[in-house]
Amino acid sequence: MSDTPAPKFLGANTALPASPEEAELDYVPNPRKGQLYMVRFAAPEFTSLCPVTGQPDFAHLVIDYAPGETIVESKSLKLFLGSFRNHCGFHEDVTVGIGQRLFDEMNPQWLRIGGYWYPRGGIPIDVFWQSGAPPEGLWLPDQGVSSYRGRG
Amino acid sequence: MSDTPAPKFLGANTALPASPEEAELDYVPNPRKGQLYMVRFAAPEFTSLCPVTGQPDFAHLVIDYAPGETIVESKSLKLFLGSFRNHCGFHEDVTVGIGQRLFDEMNPQWLRIGGYWYPRGGIPIDVFWQSGAPPEGLWLPDQGVSSYRGRG
Amino acid sequence: MSDTPAPKFLGANTALPASPEEAELDYVPNPRKGQLYMVRFAAPEFTSLCPVTGQPDFAHLVIDYAPGETIVESKSLKLFLGSFRNHCGFHEDVTVGIGQRLFDEMNPQWLRIGGYWYPRGGIPIDVFWQSGAPPEGLWLPDQGVSSYRGRG
Amino acid sequence: MSDTPAPKFLGANTALPASPEEAELDYVPNPRKGQLYMVRFAAPEFTSLCPVTGQPDFAHLVIDYAPGETIVESKSLKLFLGSFRNHCGFHEDVTVGIGQRLFDEMNPQWLRIGGYWYPRGGIPIDVFWQSGAPPEGLWLPDQGVSSYRGRG
Amino acid sequence: MSDTPAPKFLGANTALPASPEEAELDYVPNPRKGQLYMVRFAAPEFTSLCPVTGQPDFAHLVIDYAPGETIVESKSLKLFLGSFRNHCGFHEDVTVGIGQRLFDEMNPQWLRIGGYWYPRGGIPIDVFWQSGAPPEGLWLPDQGVSSYRGRG
Amino acid sequence: MSDTPAPKFLGANTALPASPEEAELDYVPNPRKGQLYMVRFAAPEFTSLCPVTGQPDFAHLVIDYAPGETIVESKSLKLFLGSFRNHCGFHEDVTVGIGQRLFDEMNPQWLRIGGYWYPRGGIPIDVFWQSGAPPEGLWLPDQGVSSYRGRG
Amino acid sequence: MSDTPAPKFLGANTALPASPEEAELDYVPNPRKGQLYMVRFAAPEFTSLCPVTGQPDFAHLVIDYAPGETIVESKSLKLFLGSFRNHCGFHEDVTVGIGQRLFDEMNPQWLRIGGYWYPRGGIPIDVFWQSGAPPEGLWLPDQGVSSYRGRG
Amino acid sequence: MSDTPAPKFLGANTALPASPEEAELDYVPNPRKGQLYMVRFAAPEFTSLCPVTGQPDFAHLVIDYAPGETIVESKSLKLFLGSFRNHCGFHEDVTVGIGQRLFDEMNPQWLRIGGYWYPRGGIPIDVFWQSGAPPEGLWLPDQGVSSYRGRG
Amino acid sequence: MSDTPAPKFLGANTALPASPEEAELDYVPNPRKGQLYMVRFAAPEFTSLCPVTGQPDFAHLVIDYAPGETIVESKSLKLFLGSFRNHCGFHEDVTVGIGQRLFDEMNPQWLRIGGYWYPRGGIPIDVFWQSGAPPEGLWLPDQGVSSYRGRG
Amino acid sequence: MSDTPAPKFLGANTALPASPEEAELDYVPNPRKGQLYMVRFAAPEFTSLCPVTGQPDFAHLVIDYAPGETIVESKSLKLFLGSFRNHCGFHEDVTVGIGQRLFDEMNPQWLRIGGYWYPRGGIPIDVFWQSGAPPEGLWLPDQGVSSYRGRG
Ligand SMILES: [Ca+2]
Ligand SMILES: [Ca+2]
Ligand SMILES: [Ca+2]
Ligand SMILES: [Ca+2]
Ligand SMILES: [Ca+2]
Ligand SMILES: [Ca+2]
Ligand SMILES: [Ca+2]
Ligand SMILES: [Ca+2]
Ligand SMILES: [Ca+2]
Ligand SMILES: [Ca+2]
Ligand SMILES: [Ca+2]
Ligand SMILES: [Ca+2]
Ligand SMILES: [Ca+2]
Ligand SMILES: [Ca+2]
Ligand SMILES: [Ca+2]
Ligand SMILES: [Ca+2]
Repeated sequence: MSDTPAPKFLGANTALPASPEEAELDYVPNPRKGQLYMVRFAAPEFTSLCPVTGQPDFAHLVIDYAPGETIVESKSLKLFLGSFRNHCGFHEDVTVGIGQRLFDEMNPQWLRIGGYWYPRGGIPIDVFWQSGAPPEGLWLPDQGVSSYRGRG
Repeated sequence: MSDTPAPKFLGANTALPASPEEAELDYVPNPRKGQLYMVRFAAPEFTSLCPVTGQPDFAHLVIDYAPGETIVESKSLKLFLGSFRNHCGFHEDVTVGIGQRLFDEMNPQWLRIGGYWYPRGGIPIDVFWQSGAPPEGLWLPDQGVSSYRGRG
Repeated sequence: MSDTPAPKFLGANTALPASPEEAELDYVPNPRKGQLYMVRFAAPEFTSLCPVTGQPDFAHLVIDYAPGETIVESKSLKLFLGSFRNHCGFHEDVTVGIGQRLFDEMNPQWLRIGGYWYPRGGIPIDVFWQSGAPPEGLWLPDQGVSSYRGRG
Repeated sequence: MSDTPAPKFLGANTALPASPEEAELDYVPNPRKGQLYMVRFAAPEFTSLCPVTGQPDFAHLVIDYAPGETIVESKSLKLFLGSFRNHCGFHEDVTVGIGQRLFDEMNPQWLRIGGYWYPRGGIPIDVFWQSGAPPEGLWLPDQGVSSYRGRG
Repeated sequence: MSDTPAPKFLGANTALPASPEEAELDYVPNPRKGQLYMVRFAAPEFTSLCPVTGQPDFAHLVIDYAPGETIVESKSLKLFLGSFRNHCGFHEDVTVGIGQRLFDEMNPQWLRIGGYWYPRGGIPIDVFWQSGAPPEGLWLPDQGVSSYRGRG
Repeated sequence: MSDTPAPKFLGANTALPASPEEAELDYVPNPRKGQLYMVRFAAPEFTSLCPVTGQPDFAHLVIDYAPGETIVESKSLKLFLGSFRNHCGFHEDVTVGIGQRLFDEMNPQWLRIGGYWYPRGGIPIDVFWQSGAPPEGLWLPDQGVSSYRGRG
Repeated sequence: MSDTPAPKFLGANTALPASPEEAELDYVPNPRKGQLYMVRFAAPEFTSLCPVTGQPDFAHLVIDYAPGETIVESKSLKLFLGSFRNHCGFHEDVTVGIGQRLFDEMNPQWLRIGGYWYPRGGIPIDVFWQSGAPPEGLWLPDQGVSSYRGRG
Repeated sequence: MSDTPAPKFLGANTALPASPEEAELDYVPNPRKGQLYMVRFAAPEFTSLCPVTGQPDFAHLVIDYAPGETIVESKSLKLFLGSFRNHCGFHEDVTVGIGQRLFDEMNPQWLRIGGYWYPRGGIPIDVFWQSGAPPEGLWLPDQGVSSYRGRG
Repeated sequence: MSDTPAPKFLGANTALPASPEEAELDYVPNPRKGQLYMVRFAAPEFTSLCPVTGQPDFAHLVIDYAPGETIVESKSLKLFLGSFRNHCGFHEDVTVGIGQRLFDEMNPQWLRIGGYWYPRGGIPIDVFWQSGAPPEGLWLPDQGVSSYRGRG
Repeated sequence: MSDTPAPKFLGANTALPASPEEAELDYVPNPRKGQLYMVRFAAPEFTSLCPVTGQPDFAHLVIDYAPGETIVESKSLKLFLGSFRNHCGFHEDVTVGIGQRLFDEMNPQWLRIGGYWYPRGGIPIDVFWQSGAPPEGLWLPDQGVSSYRGRG
């Protein structure tokens, strides 16, 4: 295992960053550089705060991207998402903001994020953002998160 | 079809009663009197009002009963359930109240009601009431309403 | 195949009986007489007529029984169920009636029937009848017909 | 939380508007203006009245849109949808009408609405309207509301 | 409710027509004329007869169309579908025939029908017909009827 | 029923052909000739033999085609599929071979076959063949056979 | 609505309590006192912290109880559950502790809690506690939370 | 691996026995003798022949047993089940017969078999047999085979 | 977090033990001692080797227990399960053996294990063992692992 | 069976190769050369090691390809996948690497691989790679692996 790059957080204990601003994402070299492929993260453990009422919000997030020079190490992604625990933001803002930060910092060939928020007032909001039209030849399955259905 | 009892509402147009008090349930002779069997109604189209905020509430109701002398005609049941449209009541009160009224008026051998309410504040309430222990020898399948799961 | 009993209808073309009264059920010797076991028929292709409005009704029926001296041949059962096509009856009456006829004619150790009717006025009716408490030692899985849920 | 825009209804108690005409929708600035993204609302708690019989109708609605200058605040949307409680309209009319009002008032880049109505006479109606062909580069997952299947 | 067009059958009791030829479909003015939208009917209560054996056949039908000048009133559709109860026809013929009659009479912008027939000899037949390529800009979700899978 | 074409096998008892070579498929006139539509058969009762080990193999087959002058009668299809019971062939060979024989003999406008084989060594094989690109304007839903998932 | 008891939190804006110790649960009179019935809350929006690593944990909680003199008001329950956001505790401890606090304070006839925690190290923990054997005659459906299955 | 008992068939190539009579089941010592536990086999690849029509029948079988001195080696079970390929028998007879042979030869503490047959004439038969009441203290989950539902 | 017992493995990096014999399970004080409750672990990531062929086997394991003086720390459980990676054993032996070791070492009030193994030769084996009849008053939901179904 | 090509591993016992480098894939002549079709393998029994922590990783893999001159024999594929048991690699690297080796060695017309990895830190990674845009006219159903959803 000697020539494996040493990730910053994987295999170590790291405290949760206090805010998204303090969270550091770890980008490691793409082990299959030159190939066009897609990576998907499903993150059902996400919570932030409502900017108007201060009450907790919860979401299931799914992030898809086509790596360029680097890939994002998943433990650093986990810590970044955890750093929203005390962050206030509207659903639309938080979802698109996570996508844009990853896109701007990592510089992948393409990225999208789906945010599937738990219902408020009986009505959930889902937010879908992508960095642009997907690259030709990229294989792009549906995220397939089931629709909210109420009861019965 | 000449010896079929004439229901009060089935096959006729009837306006929605203005309140549960004004609604009349139609009980017709049990066509299999003397047999112990169970009847189940699933009513996913139920709505009432919150007594504190005045906002609409929605529920999926399932009613099970073992007929005695009579059965309840389903169109009159539909009108009765529709009469809660402008009625204010807590989830626990409305659910148990519907069960008790049917039980007291129809006098079946046994009755139960499950009320599966849509979430408020992210938390749905389900209410389960029965008139007593079920009669021995009654076949009683689960109501099988799926549990609320949030998103993801 | 020479010592196989010759069923009356299986392997032959038979017209649909005009009414339940005209339908003949074919009971053949129980090939495992002396064993306590259960047979289940699922019959999702059932239709009869409403005695008040004359409109078609549809149901999914599931019949469970523990054979005695005979078993019922499934093609004759199919023809019997098909004979309700022009029969008028309330859901409760038709369901329990089918169970009683089979029980009375075949004389099994035990029998039950579940009738899962399509919704009318947004409310489906399910009917559950059994001939008595199941025999001790009989293995009796749930019928597992999913509950009606409306839309969403 | 000081620089968050103050919504008109979120965090306050507001009575249900008496009709769609009286309902006021609250449009707040798009927090990610300039980005092409999609917002989805699922609203399983919808009811109106049949214009012919006066009986209640129920639907599960799903609204998708690509924001322009503004987004619609979800509590005002909830109140707007609740205002149809005493409104009479055909399924096709109500569904398309909700979509058109939102599109005309909010002026998004694009909008669509799916209305999944509960069965009447055993036959549910679904209505699908969109404001035009979706913008190029918009990510547009299926609404994924399951098809009505009757019983069994 | 005074300016609502009066449907021929909705809100009245009407006997089932004896054959498709005798059934009259009721086309009412499109309440959202000029809009391109889609209407879907799911009809799980369909039965006809096999032209060779005379035995009953059952199907789950789903009809999608984009209205032109008129829409079809759903109770008249229900009666039309019920009129096949004593009609003999092959699966392919009945399914496509229903689609063609609706298309020819109603003159919508576009129409399709999916017929999902119950298995015969262990093999179900599904039939898919459309009047032509769908209009550009029409939103057209999958019918999503689950595939037949046998047992297990 | 007098002007219905008489199928060779439907409504008669026919022994299972001993091999695919001996099986005769029955092609009857297309009752909706001139229309572009699709027919789907799902056949979950298929078995053949492994050419290397001689052990039984099982598959779930789904066949889609757009009829030309004729359609294939489903009982003859059932007998043809049953004739593979003692036939040895690799999964890829059997699946594509069935598709090609039907395409070559029936001469439809287009045909495809999906073969979903039961796992061997923990790994199932699925095979997907079509006769060419589908005709323009043909409505072609997914076959929707669920993916193999192991346990858990 | 004048004779409805005024809940402490419902219909008002209340900040999230800083810890479970600071959270106050609101118990209101049981509107159906004297009846034996069950109330179920499903709370999929729950998070606390790991006492060893300090990392966030997530759970789906389901609480069932048979009311005595009082019922718990659901908004106060929501605030109580939200107060665990910065609380450190093992899964077993937190789940049983929530059940015991509600049972000790509310004094219902009976109570149980199921805690379904998200996986750590690929292995989720579920915790099931009840205050004792359920009262005779209480109707007690399964909580029906689906089992964790990994991928595939 | 030296002290592992050598099974007769596992790890070797064995031709399919020509009939159940020729099939030999391999019983190996119970590795946890003295413990009361249950073993379940699911066998979705089963086929035999109809004794009246000679047509193939298919079933999904599930066998549960509590071992005594021996367990049955699964490859020999597979060969035994495969030996029914050219065997004629009624569903009830074949299912109970397989259970009885295993019970009589293996002499387990207890055994049951569920046979879930594919539909014929639209009606599937399920058969449930057990050797007697299950031993006290045996853990016995449902077999959970989903019910047949037709289409839609 | 100072009075939390320090687990041996949680929060540290530990190599996978080479065999079950080398694996050490970490039992920590039961934080709710004196309460009768149940803990469930689902472990879908399990693999061992076949003692006859040496080929890898895979299983989904679910372990339920009622703690006594101690609970088992989940990271040590993960390492223990991982230590079977190069261990050879029959399905029945491995499953019951894991249950017995945990029961003997931890000394809980009660324990059971369900092992759901991936199919071999088309037939999966499930193994169900418990330490004895469950304690009275323990709440014991089904493990709910879905049954193997082959394809289709 | 005399003219069937003799596979290298099928029907024989072969030890698991010690590493991917030692594994030999067996390519046999394409039995339907000249036809454009697709083959899918689902492999839910895959495990490798994390290059940073040395802990086991698990994945569900699905491989799709359009054969050229040869097809890959499935037992050799099974052995190849099993050879990763002691191989260390990142999820992205292993998934794409398997796809590339198969593509380079077998030289099919086209190939793709989906790797659906079990969650680490609550977040699973899926990897999707294809050798290029799919050939025109190839039928290419979704892989349909369900999305990870956490609990509830
Ligand atoms: Ca809510
Ligand atoms: Ca209805
Ligand atoms: Ca059960
Ligand atoms: Ca619903
Ligand atoms: Ca209806
Ligand atoms: Ca159905
Ligand atoms: Ca059939
Ligand atoms: Ca689609
Ligand atoms: Ca296998
Ligand atoms: Ca799995
Ligand atoms: Ca994890
Ligand atoms: Ca249950
Ligand atoms: Ca159960
Ligand atoms: Ca199957
Ligand atoms: Ca798709
Ligand atoms: Ca969830």
